[in-house]
Amino acid sequence: MQIHEFQAMMKHLYFKRDSERGIQGTYNWLVDEVAELGEELKGTDREATEKEFADVIAWLSSLANIMGIDLESAALNKYNYKCPKCQHSPCQCTF
Amino acid sequence: MQIHEFQAMMKHLYFKRDSERGIQGTYNWLVDEVAELGEELKGTDREATEKEFADVIAWLSSLANIMGIDLESAALNKYNYKCPKCQHSPCQCTF
Repeated sequence: MQIHEFQAMMKHLYFKRDSERGIQGTYNWLVDEVAELGEELKGTDREATEKEFADVIAWLSSLANIMGIDLESAALNKYNYKCPKCQHSPCQCTF
Repeated sequence: MQIHEFQAMMKHLYFKRDSERGIQGTYNWLVDEVAELGEELKGTDREATEKEFADVIAWLSSLANIMGIDLESAALNKYNYKCPKCQHSPCQCTF
């Protein structure tokens, strides 16, 4: 599935609630989901870890929706088959 | 671009460095990028905000790469055209 399709699916499922919650509230949820992912990374439950990855990209998409930002365009404008810092592929940054 | 294609591009660009940094170090970078996104959300620089969205999905993809997790499959296993909690589309959760 394309990134923009996933974002559109999230918009269909959750845009009303996301809009009512607002930018800061939705951002706070994203932060919580990233923290939950961090906890799962310490364990051995692979299925639970996969669900936390799903939640992070889902909440990132929800946040992009209420910001009116196209996540796929944003991603490809910065990362487009080369490192945005060194301009090489693969990255050859030395720091 | 499909989610798995973006993840593969990140792998081509950064897998060697991501692997050397390791899971915890890469997770810490993801947390930093989410914090930077939070700061940009308070401002008015739309281009900078879009770049922070790009960084978050990029680092999430890098983390998935070193975990050996397919981000697209993980996302669609949980969010597949209906809310995973109430099973409706759009979501009709009442909490």
